[in-house]
Amino acid sequence: MANQNLIPVIVNGAAGKMGREVIKAVAQAPDLSLMGAIDTSPEHQGKDAGEVAGLSEPLEVPITNQLEPMLGYVAGERHMQPGVMVDFTHPDSVYDNIRSAIAYGIRPVVGTTGLSPEQIQDLADFADKASTGCLIIPNFSIGMVLLQQAAIAASQYFDHVEIIELHHNQKADAPSGTAIQTAQMLAEMGKTFNQPIVKETEKLPGARGSVADEGIRIHSVRLPGLIAHQEVIFGALGQIYTLRHDTSDRTAYMPGVLLAIRKVLQLKSLVYGLEKIL
Amino acid sequence: MANQNLIPVIVNGAAGKMGREVIKAVAQAPDLSLMGAIDTSPEHQGKDAGEVAGLSEPLEVPITNQLEPMLGYVAGERHMQPGVMVDFTHPDSVYDNIRSAIAYGIRPVVGTTGLSPEQIQDLADFADKASTGCLIIPNFSIGMVLLQQAAIAASQYFDHVEIIELHHNQKADAPSGTAIQTAQMLAEMGKTFNQPIVKETEKLPGARGSVADEGIRIHSVRLPGLIAHQEVIFGALGQIYTLRHDTSDRTAYMPGVLLAIRKVLQLKSLVYGLEKIL
Amino acid sequence: MANQNLIPVIVNGAAGKMGREVIKAVAQAPDLSLMGAIDTSPEHQGKDAGEVAGLSEPLEVPITNQLEPMLGYVAGERHMQPGVMVDFTHPDSVYDNIRSAIAYGIRPVVGTTGLSPEQIQDLADFADKASTGCLIIPNFSIGMVLLQQAAIAASQYFDHVEIIELHHNQKADAPSGTAIQTAQMLAEMGKTFNQPIVKETEKLPGARGSVADEGIRIHSVRLPGLIAHQEVIFGALGQIYTLRHDTSDRTAYMPGVLLAIRKVLQLKSLVYGLEKIL
Amino acid sequence: MANQNLIPVIVNGAAGKMGREVIKAVAQAPDLSLMGAIDTSPEHQGKDAGEVAGLSEPLEVPITNQLEPMLGYVAGERHMQPGVMVDFTHPDSVYDNIRSAIAYGIRPVVGTTGLSPEQIQDLADFADKASTGCLIIPNFSIGMVLLQQAAIAASQYFDHVEIIELHHNQKADAPSGTAIQTAQMLAEMGKTFNQPIVKETEKLPGARGSVADEGIRIHSVRLPGLIAHQEVIFGALGQIYTLRHDTSDRTAYMPGVLLAIRKVLQLKSLVYGLEKIL
Repeated sequence: MANQNLIPVIVNGAAGKMGREVIKAVAQAPDLSLMGAIDTSPEHQGKDAGEVAGLSEPLEVPITNQLEPMLGYVAGERHMQPGVMVDFTHPDSVYDNIRSAIAYGIRPVVGTTGLSPEQIQDLADFADKASTGCLIIPNFSIGMVLLQQAAIAASQYFDHVEIIELHHNQKADAPSGTAIQTAQMLAEMGKTFNQPIVKETEKLPGARGSVADEGIRIHSVRLPGLIAHQEVIFGALGQIYTLRHDTSDRTAYMPGVLLAIRKVLQLKSLVYGLEKIL
Repeated sequence: MANQNLIPVIVNGAAGKMGREVIKAVAQAPDLSLMGAIDTSPEHQGKDAGEVAGLSEPLEVPITNQLEPMLGYVAGERHMQPGVMVDFTHPDSVYDNIRSAIAYGIRPVVGTTGLSPEQIQDLADFADKASTGCLIIPNFSIGMVLLQQAAIAASQYFDHVEIIELHHNQKADAPSGTAIQTAQMLAEMGKTFNQPIVKETEKLPGARGSVADEGIRIHSVRLPGLIAHQEVIFGALGQIYTLRHDTSDRTAYMPGVLLAIRKVLQLKSLVYGLEKIL
Repeated sequence: MANQNLIPVIVNGAAGKMGREVIKAVAQAPDLSLMGAIDTSPEHQGKDAGEVAGLSEPLEVPITNQLEPMLGYVAGERHMQPGVMVDFTHPDSVYDNIRSAIAYGIRPVVGTTGLSPEQIQDLADFADKASTGCLIIPNFSIGMVLLQQAAIAASQYFDHVEIIELHHNQKADAPSGTAIQTAQMLAEMGKTFNQPIVKETEKLPGARGSVADEGIRIHSVRLPGLIAHQEVIFGALGQIYTLRHDTSDRTAYMPGVLLAIRKVLQLKSLVYGLEKIL
Repeated sequence: MANQNLIPVIVNGAAGKMGREVIKAVAQAPDLSLMGAIDTSPEHQGKDAGEVAGLSEPLEVPITNQLEPMLGYVAGERHMQPGVMVDFTHPDSVYDNIRSAIAYGIRPVVGTTGLSPEQIQDLADFADKASTGCLIIPNFSIGMVLLQQAAIAASQYFDHVEIIELHHNQKADAPSGTAIQTAQMLAEMGKTFNQPIVKETEKLPGARGSVADEGIRIHSVRLPGLIAHQEVIFGALGQIYTLRHDTSDRTAYMPGVLLAIRKVLQLKSLVYGLEKIL
C-alpha cells in the first residue's frame, strides 16, 4: 500500500461520526493511504478502523489511542509524501494534537471546533516557525462556502437580504452558527442592509426574526424531518435572488476534507477557513 | 344586454384597485351583467366604468356616487335574476351599504374589511329577517382557502408546523393577517404543536420567530421584489410536507369574487368566509 | 410482554430495510407486541430481530424462516388482540404469505408491491369469505397521501398543473410511480388540464417534460444529494399554489405502518391504499 | 435641467414596455437627464414622454420619430457629459440606430435583440474606429448575471446540475433563452456533467427534460400565475446547492440599464453582455 506518490493520512477521532466518514473517504481516494486511526474511546481499541467505519472489508489499520508514536511512525515514512493528520476530536485535546503533529512535521487538517483566538494565533506562530502547513476548517462544506461567496458577490448589488435557516428540532441554539457567519460576511461589505421604507410593527413579538449585524435578519425554523438548510434571500424592485444549501448527510463534507488534505501539503503556514483554499 | 338569465351586478367602490378588477371580471363573465358602478371619488363621476378599469372598449356604465337609486333601479329589473352588489369600499360606509342593499333585495358580496363582530351579527339578523343572502369575505383567494383546508387536514397527522409568510417591504405589520388566521385554524384542532425535545436558546432574540396560538411559530420576511406569499411547513420524522401560496396580482381574487356572486343567490342568510362556499 | 390489550405483530421480511424499521417502530409502540420476525435470508437465521434492526437492546425475538408455525402460534394467543402480519417481502412470495395469514385469522398489512390485479381480486374474495381485514398499501407515506388529497381538492378550482419529482440519481425510471399516481388521481377529475393559449415549441426536445393523463406534465430531476421529493404546482391568473413532499428517511413511513396495523383489526375485507384509512 | 455633470440620455423606443420603464428610471436618476424620446408609433407623436410612461408629472420631453436630429442636438450639448442612447426598438432598425448614434459620438446602450453575429462584429469595428463605447446587453437583469456567475463558480466543484425554468403560459418557446445561456456558460467549463450511474429509462417520453450542452438538463414549466423564474440545482453526495432567480416586473432590469448608461461612458469599444461590466 505504501507508495511514494501516496499521501499518508492519520485520522484522529477515528471512531466518531465524522471520523468514520473520513476513514471511508480516505480509503476510497486513490492518492491517499490511511496509515493510522486514533481514538481514545476504550471500546474501540484494537478494532479495525474500516470495520468501525462500516466498510465491508477491513482496512488492516487497528484503532489505537497513542497519537505520538503514530506521528513518529508516519514521519519516518520518507519514501512517501509528507503526512497529514485529520483531527475531529474534542476542544480539550485539539490544541495539543496540532502542536504534536507540527512537531513531527505532520500537517494538521482540523475540523474540531472550540479553539480560542489566542490558541489559533499561537498555533499559527508555531506553524510559521516550522514552515509547516496547517488548515483549521470550522465548516468543510464546499457548497456552503460557494453559497457564502455568491452571497457576498450579490450583496454589492442588492441592499435587502434576509436569511432563513432550517434545522431538525434537536438543535438547541438559534440562529445556527453558519447563518450568523453568513450574516457577518455580508456585514463586512460595510453597508447597512434593509433600510425600512415604512414603520414596521410586530403584532406578535419575534415575527420579524432576529437582527444580526448591519440589519440582516435571520429566521430559524426547527422541525423534525428537516436536516440542515440555509436560504439567503436577496430582494430588489421586481426581483428576488435566492441561494439555498441543503445538507442531508455527513458525506457532504468529504469533498472538503479531501481537498484540504491535498492542499495542506502546499502550505507553509496556518490557514483558517475552507474559502481560503477554494 | 339585459337578459332574464343574467345576474345584474352593481360594483360599489368601482374606481378602487379591487373595484376596477371586479369591473373587468364581471364584464368578461358571460352570465353576469354590469348594471351599475358606484364610487364617491369626485374625479371619476360620470366616467365610463370600463375605461376607468382600463378596458379598451367602454362599458356604457357611467360611474355615479348615488347608491340607493341604483339599488332601486336594479331591484326593478324583474325580468332578470336577483341583483348582487359587490362592495369594496371603506370601513366607514360598508355597514350602511350592506343594509341598503338588503333592504332593496340586492345580495351583498362584501370584500371590505373592518366590520365589528357586533355589526356582523346585526347584519346577519337583518339578512335572516329578509331571507336574503349576504356574503362577507375577508379574503377572496381560493388558492389560500385551499391551502388552509389542506393545512387543517395535515394537522391531524403532523404535530409540528411552522409558518413563513413573505411580503414586499411596504407592508408595515407582521405577521400578516392571513398567516395569523392560518395559525388560528390549526390551533382550533385542539392540540399543542411543536412540543420541544431540547431546551431551545435564542442567541439572537427573535430568531425562532413569533409564537401564535398552540405553539405555532410564524416568521415574517419583508423584502422588495416579494409580493404576497405564505408557506406552511409540517415536519415529522423523515419527512416534510410544505404548502405554499403565491399571489402576484389582484386577478388572483377574481375567481373567488365571481364564485361568490353566483353563490350568494342561493343563500337566504349571511355567510362569512370563502371557505363556506367552496 | 403478552397482554390482552396488546396487538401481536409478526414482521415478514424482518431483515430487509423496511422490515428493520418496522421492527423498531413496533418495539416502541406501547400497544403493539412483536411476536415473530420472519426472514428467508440464511445469514440472519436465529439472530435477534432487535439487534438486526440496530436496537441497542435485544428484543428476545429470534429471526426464523418458518412463517406457518409462527402464524399458528400467534393465532393461538387468544388472550390477546387478533394478530397482524406486516409483509415487506418479495413479489414472488407475497401472494402466498397473505393467503396463509388470512387462513390463520392473522390480518395482513402488506407493503410488498408487485401483486397483479387478478391476485388482488382473488385475495379480496378470500378475505371477504373469511371476514378478515387485509390492507394492501403501495405507499405508506401519510404525508404523500395528504399531498395527493390536497391536490385533488385544488384540481376542482385550478385548470393548470404540472408536477416536478426529484430523486437521487440511483433511481433508474422516470417519472416516479408516485408522481404518475398523483397525475392519475387528478386526471380522474374528468377534465383536461393545461389547455394551451399559445402554440408551444420545444427548441430542445423534452424541455416541456412528459405528458401524463389529461395533459398533466411531469418533470423528473435526478441528482446525487436528492432523496425523494414531489412538487405539484397549480397555476391560475395571479397565483401559484404549490404542494411539496420531501422524504428523507424510511422512518417517514412508520406512522402509516402503525396506523395500518391498528386499522386492519377493524376491517372485515381487503382494502387497497392508505388514503382509504386516513 | 441641463448641467455639466449630468449625462444626457435619449431613449429610443420610448413608448414600448421597456422604453417606458427606462423613461421613468432615467427621470428619477439624479445624475441623468432625459433629453430625447424617440418612437415611431404614430399615436404617440408629440405626447409627453413622462405622461406616456405613466408619471404623474410631465417631463417636458415630447416623443418624436426623428432620431438623427435628436442625436445631433445632444451631440451639440458640449457643456454636458457625452450622450447616451438607450435602444429598445426592433431587430429591423437597431443596427442603423447604433451606427447613427456612434457617428454622432453618442454611446449606444442596446437592449434590442436580433442582431446577427456579423452585424455585431461590424458594429464593433465601427465603434473601435470611433473610439466610442457601445454596450449590447441581451439581458439587463443583474440578479440573473449574479446567478450565472455563481453557477459557474459552483460548476468547478459540482459534477451534477439540472436547470428548471418556469414561465407564464403565454411563452411559446422552451427552454427559455436565458436557461439555454446558463447551460452554455456551464458547458464552457469543459467537463461533461451528469454522468449516469444507472441506466435511465423514461416511462413517459420527455420526463427527464431536455439535454443541453455537456449533459446539462433543462426542464421548462409553463403555468398561468408564473412570471419568469430560473432555478439551477447542483447535487453531490449529501448536499444540494440551489440558485434561484425570480423576476416579477420590468423594474428588475432598471438597475442594469442605469449601470450600463454610466459604464458606457468609460468604454472606447463595443462590449457584449452585462456580466462584462459588473
